[in-house]
Amino acid sequence: MFTHQKAPQFDVKAHAPDPAFARRFQEVLGGKWGEMTVAMQYLYQGWNARLPGKYRDMLMAIGTEELGHVEMIVTAIDQLLDKAPPMAPDDTTGSTQSSEFGLQNPQHTIVNGGGAYPHDSNGIPWSGAYITASGNLMADFHLNVTAEMQGRLQVSRLFHMTDDPGMKDLIRFLITRDHMHQMQWLSAIEELKADGLDNVPVPEAFPLEEEFGEFARTFIQASDGEAATEGRWANGPAPDGGGDFRSALIQATGEARELAPGDPRLYGTNP
Amino acid sequence: MFTHQKAPQFDVKAHAPDPAFARRFQEVLGGKWGEMTVAMQYLYQGWNARLPGKYRDMLMAIGTEELGHVEMIVTAIDQLLDKAPPMAPDDTTGSTQSSEFGLQNPQHTIVNGGGAYPHDSNGIPWSGAYITASGNLMADFHLNVTAEMQGRLQVSRLFHMTDDPGMKDLIRFLITRDHMHQMQWLSAIEELKADGLDNVPVPEAFPLEEEFGEFARTFIQASDGEAATEGRWANGPAPDGGGDFRSALIQATGEARELAPGDPRLYGTNP
Amino acid sequence: MFTHQKAPQFDVKAHAPDPAFARRFQEVLGGKWGEMTVAMQYLYQGWNARLPGKYRDMLMAIGTEELGHVEMIVTAIDQLLDKAPPMAPDDTTGSTQSSEFGLQNPQHTIVNGGGAYPHDSNGIPWSGAYITASGNLMADFHLNVTAEMQGRLQVSRLFHMTDDPGMKDLIRFLITRDHMHQMQWLSAIEELKADGLDNVPVPEAFPLEEEFGEFARTFIQASDGEAATEGRWANGPAPDGGGDFRSALIQATGEARELAPGDPRLYGTNP
Amino acid sequence: MFTHQKAPQFDVKAHAPDPAFARRFQEVLGGKWGEMTVAMQYLYQGWNARLPGKYRDMLMAIGTEELGHVEMIVTAIDQLLDKAPPMAPDDTTGSTQSSEFGLQNPQHTIVNGGGAYPHDSNGIPWSGAYITASGNLMADFHLNVTAEMQGRLQVSRLFHMTDDPGMKDLIRFLITRDHMHQMQWLSAIEELKADGLDNVPVPEAFPLEEEFGEFARTFIQASDGEAATEGRWANGPAPDGGGDFRSALIQATGEARELAPGDPRLYGTNP
Amino acid sequence: MFTHQKAPQFDVKAHAPDPAFARRFQEVLGGKWGEMTVAMQYLYQGWNARLPGKYRDMLMAIGTEELGHVEMIVTAIDQLLDKAPPMAPDDTTGSTQSSEFGLQNPQHTIVNGGGAYPHDSNGIPWSGAYITASGNLMADFHLNVTAEMQGRLQVSRLFHMTDDPGMKDLIRFLITRDHMHQMQWLSAIEELKADGLDNVPVPEAFPLEEEFGEFARTFIQASDGEAATEGRWANGPAPDGGGDFRSALIQATGEARELAPGDPRLYGTNP
Amino acid sequence: MFTHQKAPQFDVKAHAPDPAFARRFQEVLGGKWGEMTVAMQYLYQGWNARLPGKYRDMLMAIGTEELGHVEMIVTAIDQLLDKAPPMAPDDTTGSTQSSEFGLQNPQHTIVNGGGAYPHDSNGIPWSGAYITASGNLMADFHLNVTAEMQGRLQVSRLFHMTDDPGMKDLIRFLITRDHMHQMQWLSAIEELKADGLDNVPVPEAFPLEEEFGEFARTFIQASDGEAATEGRWANGPAPDGGGDFRSALIQATGEARELAPGDPRLYGTNP
Ligand SMILES: [Ca+2]
Ligand SMILES: [Ca+2]
Ligand SMILES: [Ca+2]
Ligand SMILES: [Ca+2]
Ligand SMILES: [Ca+2]
Ligand SMILES: [Ca+2]
Repeated sequence: MFTHQKAPQFDVKAHAPDPAFARRFQEVLGGKWGEMTVAMQYLYQGWNARLPGKYRDMLMAIGTEELGHVEMIVTAIDQLLDKAPPMAPDDTTGSTQSSEFGLQNPQHTIVNGGGAYPHDSNGIPWSGAYITASGNLMADFHLNVTAEMQGRLQVSRLFHMTDDPGMKDLIRFLITRDHMHQMQWLSAIEELKADGLDNVPVPEAFPLEEEFGEFARTFIQASDGEAATEGRWANGPAPDGGGDFRSALIQATGEARELAPGDPRLYGTNP
Repeated sequence: MFTHQKAPQFDVKAHAPDPAFARRFQEVLGGKWGEMTVAMQYLYQGWNARLPGKYRDMLMAIGTEELGHVEMIVTAIDQLLDKAPPMAPDDTTGSTQSSEFGLQNPQHTIVNGGGAYPHDSNGIPWSGAYITASGNLMADFHLNVTAEMQGRLQVSRLFHMTDDPGMKDLIRFLITRDHMHQMQWLSAIEELKADGLDNVPVPEAFPLEEEFGEFARTFIQASDGEAATEGRWANGPAPDGGGDFRSALIQATGEARELAPGDPRLYGTNP
Repeated sequence: MFTHQKAPQFDVKAHAPDPAFARRFQEVLGGKWGEMTVAMQYLYQGWNARLPGKYRDMLMAIGTEELGHVEMIVTAIDQLLDKAPPMAPDDTTGSTQSSEFGLQNPQHTIVNGGGAYPHDSNGIPWSGAYITASGNLMADFHLNVTAEMQGRLQVSRLFHMTDDPGMKDLIRFLITRDHMHQMQWLSAIEELKADGLDNVPVPEAFPLEEEFGEFARTFIQASDGEAATEGRWANGPAPDGGGDFRSALIQATGEARELAPGDPRLYGTNP
Repeated sequence: MFTHQKAPQFDVKAHAPDPAFARRFQEVLGGKWGEMTVAMQYLYQGWNARLPGKYRDMLMAIGTEELGHVEMIVTAIDQLLDKAPPMAPDDTTGSTQSSEFGLQNPQHTIVNGGGAYPHDSNGIPWSGAYITASGNLMADFHLNVTAEMQGRLQVSRLFHMTDDPGMKDLIRFLITRDHMHQMQWLSAIEELKADGLDNVPVPEAFPLEEEFGEFARTFIQASDGEAATEGRWANGPAPDGGGDFRSALIQATGEARELAPGDPRLYGTNP
Repeated sequence: MFTHQKAPQFDVKAHAPDPAFARRFQEVLGGKWGEMTVAMQYLYQGWNARLPGKYRDMLMAIGTEELGHVEMIVTAIDQLLDKAPPMAPDDTTGSTQSSEFGLQNPQHTIVNGGGAYPHDSNGIPWSGAYITASGNLMADFHLNVTAEMQGRLQVSRLFHMTDDPGMKDLIRFLITRDHMHQMQWLSAIEELKADGLDNVPVPEAFPLEEEFGEFARTFIQASDGEAATEGRWANGPAPDGGGDFRSALIQATGEARELAPGDPRLYGTNP
Repeated sequence: MFTHQKAPQFDVKAHAPDPAFARRFQEVLGGKWGEMTVAMQYLYQGWNARLPGKYRDMLMAIGTEELGHVEMIVTAIDQLLDKAPPMAPDDTTGSTQSSEFGLQNPQHTIVNGGGAYPHDSNGIPWSGAYITASGNLMADFHLNVTAEMQGRLQVSRLFHMTDDPGMKDLIRFLITRDHMHQMQWLSAIEELKADGLDNVPVPEAFPLEEEFGEFARTFIQASDGEAATEGRWANGPAPDGGGDFRSALIQATGEARELAPGDPRLYGTNP
């Protein structure tokens, strides 16, 4: 159950309208790696967690914080769309063809009347497919690490696309929290290992003896870029302690099989 | 540029038709974390890499290997759909209402005539949005780690949903390669650090002095699950060496702002 | 069964090319609240209606009219794309970087060769998910009311984004019909009530005694915006005649439950 | 800014596993008219509201309450998936072809490991396109009315698809709140009118003199269902007080226009 | 402009409910190659045609006919959902877990209340991306040929999935029209050639001297399947009369290029 | 199984950055008719082919070649994004509102850091729904013909949107291969007929006596465009040799049927 208060975690104040930046800012609101994604991903992971205690509680805490980040970016976009006439002044001909139009997301005005929405910088709607809650915390925390990395990368790029001091401050706040959250997920991964809950290879519980030894620890070279075999992933002890990495050219060990003819009532092309 | 040979990296042989398992197997072919995703993700990361050498070459090698995994699962699904008439025998009334129908993906027969397609286990088409190639290898290699973890998790679950020895062997092969690939990406992350190319927080190059110290290293408690503050992410030295983690209740530091009225030509509800 | 005639319900004549407006006009053709949506929504509601007579007949009439509106907007967009060279003159270098390019939908030329398509103003394809035909006319007629309101709102905004007298006339026609259609659906809602076919709460037939009295007629305050409790929805008699509205702070009446451990073969993180 | 507490607004307790009902229950979680939609729709409408005060505060209150409903249904689905092995017992051949498989959403196990996700009953992901926040409260409140009607309709249908007393109680709670929320939006519509903020036709501010009188107040008959002209929408005074409804057969008033030839560099088929 | 009449082009009468077949029948209503697609594709091609006369008129005629096919399949699905209780009898426990549930599309009842919708047999919504109207009639008529082939193929498969004589008759009608329409498009392709409007290679107007002779008329062998070079496409005169087909192994003629480093403000991994 | 080499089939070298053209070039990479589509479509058709030999081998060869075309266009887009700062110089205010921004795909920088992705020219992700592998080679080869026609049409249009000699050469190469591939599929269609594998109407194996003679070979006029009946498709011998084409006005031969009332537990509007 949630409660809401109107004052935000950090101040949001655009100093001037900028619909072109509003369009770009949508990416970290409703894009694949935006705030909608981390909020929903952490909440669903928390709700679905079958292990009670610190991990589940932590997921609920951060998911709830991220909901507030969604709110902050919505507010910022709304301010950037303030008083930024997207339309021809009624007494001017031809202005609908001004270059300003190209900078904007047309749905910001036609559909939303000057407001943000859960879509990305090209106007593509946010999708529930962007989030994963697999039931395995080790796998999911690695996803959460990259989510915070992709997110920090995107806001770092946006930092250079605006000169508005209020927007720059908001971005600095988001960058700071993404930094913290990267460390949080990395620490949680270590804690999962320390608590004996899982390990590489994830899932650790699947019996290793079912694996095929000849395909383990071998980097397979399927391209002609020879430098690939010089990396750490092809030389020295593998991190699971089970032996040394090696490399080999890709080779076919299976048989080229022909398919059986189809049922004639499927009207496919049969022999 | 690619070349193809018909014999596969590992043998693919279903011992009996099983359209119900064929439907499920689609998840690791065309689902968010399936072979289409890792093949395309690694290839796009490789093609877009602006750093020549071992990382780029490695991405091309593994992406190309994964293309072959796509082919292997397609072949497996096709075999599972062999001679498995999804239709009523023409001389039997009522059989279209048999429970068999519920087990199948209707598009396997109606659309594909007994073949696989790049869709997931519910028939939802694979999407280009499933992949990310951000230009930052550190962020992307963390995504690749979780991709191999999610993938290995899914095939481990599928391992228990079939009794076909050929399918179990194929799954064991996939599990083995996912194990190797998890180690490969983890090693590559270490190598990126060793090569001084990036580090946590990603991207390391964004100047830390732009961050707000008061929001760094603080786990923010926004839910009433008290165990959350007991984790490693809220206590002890933060992994970036910049200080200790601490925790605090979420609080509003910003101002609740009212939006300006909209342009009257937008016909929104204004004060 | 349908028949078609080439002359339109209202004249369509753009006076000059305007690819920037063509891009925007797509919103009311193939956007969520565009003519494709109302045409298909009304037709599917009519086809699925299990109550013969005036409601069903009316749905078929208006759905068919809206198909003609689809045709009219397609024609308008095609005219706006006439002779509006989207490409560099072959003898001019660098012109592909002119600001004109930003104004256009690139698919209007590359994909359609100067034609409209069932996509919105950002090029996102129309989706069958935009329409609802629930089988309950009361619920659906309320959807139809808002569809005509959202539609009229959007064309009213577009009215200010063009100076072309032909396009302004077409928009005036669309605005007029949206006005009529709002009244039509509101009248049809009243008639459904008068005919005893349904009422608030929709569906009326679900037995009220199954509801929990303590949660009925209470506005629940889950945010700190205190003005919320001053509205009509929190004071005075509720419109269903069953008692007075009241307001209360949100409170937890249920138990915080822990989930059972998962099946070990799912390899989730279990206690 | 949000805070979360673990105890829910209403108790959630499934008495027995039922993966078939879990699949169906997804509809009101992540479907077009599910709790994700109303939560996000009301929050975005509130965040984007340019009119401060009771309407905005009310939107934030109800949106926040709905977030808790999302949580409740997630918990319910998770419980329904408890201990409901979707997989063959390892010692039983052929059981993967049992009819049980057809009842389930395969992603509930393969992807989520026994958890809910923001997708509908066919596994289609929730989309940001499901919500609308137009900036015009009158248009949006009518959308909100139908959302609560469609929602109540769907849970009323689900009420008959389960025998689990805990699930039936949860559904009764949801039905009760949907009843309240229908009345809430209807009251808010009346209050908007009473406050002079908008009226039919929405948007009222668009000048009526721009409309074409000959197309106003006329029900246009484009189908041969004659009963259509007997309805209230074709007879008697129109609700805007501007005159009487009438009906007329559809007729072409515009000219059938030929399009100009396309630019030859588009390689279309030209005269 | 369209008009509608209630009687259909061909009779639609299901003899008994069959929700399992209703689910499958959705494929040819709202699937990629269903009636929604051909109706909309032909209408958009007609509306966008910049060549007046017989081709445009023909497109409008067939598109309008196909709209009636949409209506017929909707009616058929509705009948198949008649009196087919998808829900547990209220007095029977456990029946929600009957195998019948697996056969059905849950949205047919929960969302539509016993009605069809523009979605495919897995419930995926019809998409505007399914249709193409390129402005080039030769390219589009070839698309139309395959649309009628894919469509006839699908209904031929469906023919064997039902025993209902009414449904079999309807399918026979659809198969007959698809036969006619295949011939229609093939004849129209010949007529386009005879009228000198286009030819292979499409578009013929692009100057052939811009092509690279060394890559023309060569079948390129990139796989080890040797039979590929035995086909007509690798031997004998090419159909454009410009020379003989030949075959060659794929070979690299370009340079393996390294990309330039990225802008440092993009924070990618640079040399 | 695949192998990769870094040198491409044809050289790729952009002479200067051009992010506006990079945005447009995405259409033939990740659009509906782009290289992703043909590569995947031919590979899936080959993998699923149940007829071994020349057709299957040919599909694998061309699908593999097309994978290399994907790589080439990715490289080209990456070069076009080189050194083309999409961001304000840090020392210049206001430049984020320059018209340059409108020309670009914002995700090229914010998401990809200067790289291509499998999306179209409006940023919509490539979809597995773009491809079809029906199991019937005759139907699919006709799809392949139009794919190469639509593709050649699009690159011919793009040819006029750039002045970069390297890009023009690449486009000339693509146009040449599309020309060859059109001829390849047309020849393969003839070969399928010559080999007796299928014929018009596709699928030929469905018994013709199941068709309704009165609906065969009749062009049905459902629009008032009279020229439609002058075409070859309405006059003279039909290509299947079964009789002459004729034309007739559309007419209703079926009965206008009323639907049965729905189950009361669906709460629809019933008589
Ligand atoms: Ca955040
Ligand atoms: Ca793999
Ligand atoms: Ca309309
Ligand atoms: Ca609710
Ligand atoms: Ca048809
Ligand atoms: Ca190609």
